[in-house]
Amino acid sequence: MSDLPVIRLRPKSKPQAIRHGFPWVFADEVVADRRTRAIPRGSFAVLEDAERRPLALVTVNPDSKIIGRVMDADPQAVIDGQWLRTRLTRALAMRERLYDAPYYRLVHAEADGLPGLIIDRFGDAAVMQPNAAWADGMAAEIAEALVDVAGVSTVILNGQGRTRGLEGLDERMEVLRGTAPGAPLQVPMNGATYLADLMGGQKTGLFLDQRPNHAFVQRLAKDARVLDVFSHVGGFGLSALAAGASHATCVDGSAAALELAKGGAEAMGMTEQMTIIQSDAFKAMEQLAEEGAQFDVVVCDPPAFAPSKPTLEAGLRAYERVAKLAAPLVAPGGYLALCSCSHAVDLSAFRNVSARGIGRGGRRGQLIHSGQSGPDHPTLPQLAETGYLKALFFRLDG
Amino acid sequence: MSDLPVIRLRPKSKPQAIRHGFPWVFADEVVADRRTRAIPRGSFAVLEDAERRPLALVTVNPDSKIIGRVMDADPQAVIDGQWLRTRLTRALAMRERLYDAPYYRLVHAEADGLPGLIIDRFGDAAVMQPNAAWADGMAAEIAEALVDVAGVSTVILNGQGRTRGLEGLDERMEVLRGTAPGAPLQVPMNGATYLADLMGGQKTGLFLDQRPNHAFVQRLAKDARVLDVFSHVGGFGLSALAAGASHATCVDGSAAALELAKGGAEAMGMTEQMTIIQSDAFKAMEQLAEEGAQFDVVVCDPPAFAPSKPTLEAGLRAYERVAKLAAPLVAPGGYLALCSCSHAVDLSAFRNVSARGIGRGGRRGQLIHSGQSGPDHPTLPQLAETGYLKALFFRLDG
Repeated sequence: MSDLPVIRLRPKSKPQAIRHGFPWVFADEVVADRRTRAIPRGSFAVLEDAERRPLALVTVNPDSKIIGRVMDADPQAVIDGQWLRTRLTRALAMRERLYDAPYYRLVHAEADGLPGLIIDRFGDAAVMQPNAAWADGMAAEIAEALVDVAGVSTVILNGQGRTRGLEGLDERMEVLRGTAPGAPLQVPMNGATYLADLMGGQKTGLFLDQRPNHAFVQRLAKDARVLDVFSHVGGFGLSALAAGASHATCVDGSAAALELAKGGAEAMGMTEQMTIIQSDAFKAMEQLAEEGAQFDVVVCDPPAFAPSKPTLEAGLRAYERVAKLAAPLVAPGGYLALCSCSHAVDLSAFRNVSARGIGRGGRRGQLIHSGQSGPDHPTLPQLAETGYLKALFFRLDG
Repeated sequence: MSDLPVIRLRPKSKPQAIRHGFPWVFADEVVADRRTRAIPRGSFAVLEDAERRPLALVTVNPDSKIIGRVMDADPQAVIDGQWLRTRLTRALAMRERLYDAPYYRLVHAEADGLPGLIIDRFGDAAVMQPNAAWADGMAAEIAEALVDVAGVSTVILNGQGRTRGLEGLDERMEVLRGTAPGAPLQVPMNGATYLADLMGGQKTGLFLDQRPNHAFVQRLAKDARVLDVFSHVGGFGLSALAAGASHATCVDGSAAALELAKGGAEAMGMTEQMTIIQSDAFKAMEQLAEEGAQFDVVVCDPPAFAPSKPTLEAGLRAYERVAKLAAPLVAPGGYLALCSCSHAVDLSAFRNVSARGIGRGGRRGQLIHSGQSGPDHPTLPQLAETGYLKALFFRLDG
């Protein structure tokens, strides 16, 4: 028997979900005795059912609503360098089958069997976000396994963001292996070149999750005038240019992000085909409408307007407003892509407000495609809510 | 004023849905007087709200639950050759932007503004399914417009299937333009070659809707042993071979479909890489499991087990059984694609029974992709249920 602490399900909690692969144990499901409360954050424990039968090996955070996260279905598993290497090898094999260049999300938390851990790979460099206490504590071991398995030379720990707060973790930003890149990294995706600022950017420096939606816009982009609203570093605009768009206009509030978008266009030798507008996106769309501007393809990829349930109603109104302002900017017979990365907004609600917004913008449309994040962002079927990214592609009336 | 008949919404029916683009009027929403009942099936009428304001031009079928289908938001529109050419031109422009060869669904009914009308294009030939009375009656005009707009030389009318029965239409099979091909047609898709029997096959001879899911399987296929269960003419098997699969095994109950699958492999010069098994798919999977056979990629694309609400429960059980039988046939770390083309089964229900079936088959998996039909099968956002096709791609445990 292992000498790990034990957390035990209450008699009324159903162990079936865990047996069927559900990865989380909520605080109100376990016997919350003094011993359980005293388990240090991020340590490992054996989860038992009410009859004291071991169910799984979990990591414990007594300060979180999710008190336990399943690390391994085997209650006797030992979480060490070898265990980490096995999980990373498995995650890497899938990405190597799917992508022909080493730029992808290598680890997507629970769905890759590494709860709360995100790792994005940019060639020789990897950026990890340990959003669970166990991963924060084992960051050095994870970096070592990462160098071994994936052969990267630089590992950056980006410990920022809301999720860490929920786990009671402080902000951190460290270079664990190698040296931090002195300049933004060039990242090839879908034939475009993006600049990723691994040390100063949002999240891990580049949003890899939109890759299949960038690719779908490319199918619409030949000779098109493209408007990329909330462009960040030019995700949609640069991919459209790579696919033959005649011009891309990128709108964003952040001067730093637009600087990277411009840098991407420069790296592609297409500075003349790109215009950047630094502005509040809503104001910019109103302004463009006043000028009577129209584009063959308009993409709106705003930040999460409804990151959590309490913000849902306001978020849905904001999405509707985006659709309403964007629709008049689409040329007759042109295309409108509307994205949401809000966990709390499901596909059907997003489709409804988008269609309503388009209608209030004086247009009608066919829905030709509903996109999502790529396969390097897998989900657990038992945790469907992790499918947060939605991209709706409409063709508007002539 | 036009001299068309009028159908009028009851005082309690809400005209907003129609104004916002909803394309159907149900029989219980209109004033069902003798005059309305006497309107000949398939003729056109002006839809009015309860205050006699014209809302739209509709086609009427007094024998159908859907008594009216919106033809045009303009109540004064005239449905003639010119009108048909305008709609077809608009539909064609989108497909020509999206596809580099003329093989696609050219018209997808309501979403392309042509209610109940399906047209698939195979190069110089088009196959139309007029599943609404107006289209059945105007088949000759549609064929003429199709020749004009798309430049096809052969137009086949395939008037079979359940939907026509609901509209009170008899079965028809006619060559409206050109001559029927004497042999199955070669259709290139995703680098594979398919054989389509336009006169004798299911639906319009080939299922074009799975094209993006075939393409996703191709990303998994290199050097893989692939099992294609419910293969029909080899949709997944042949695309996998085109992408470098080492072998494809196609299982189907229909000897005629398997003959076409073999013909496709022959056209690709890959007969030796394909095995066909003519058998009930469930029995074949049980048999393969008994033999201990395993494959790197397994695809199950069964017929609609739940075509309508009353068949939902039995259908879900059948999908779960497919998943349960297929999971043990997937090699460690391999991939399982499960498809459903049942209207009545939504994505979340299908995901749940698929995950449960995989679990009962003794495996666990990550969900790496949820596929759908391609953009040549658009939907109306107001009619979300037209998104019938679901393809879930799981990676199973090692």
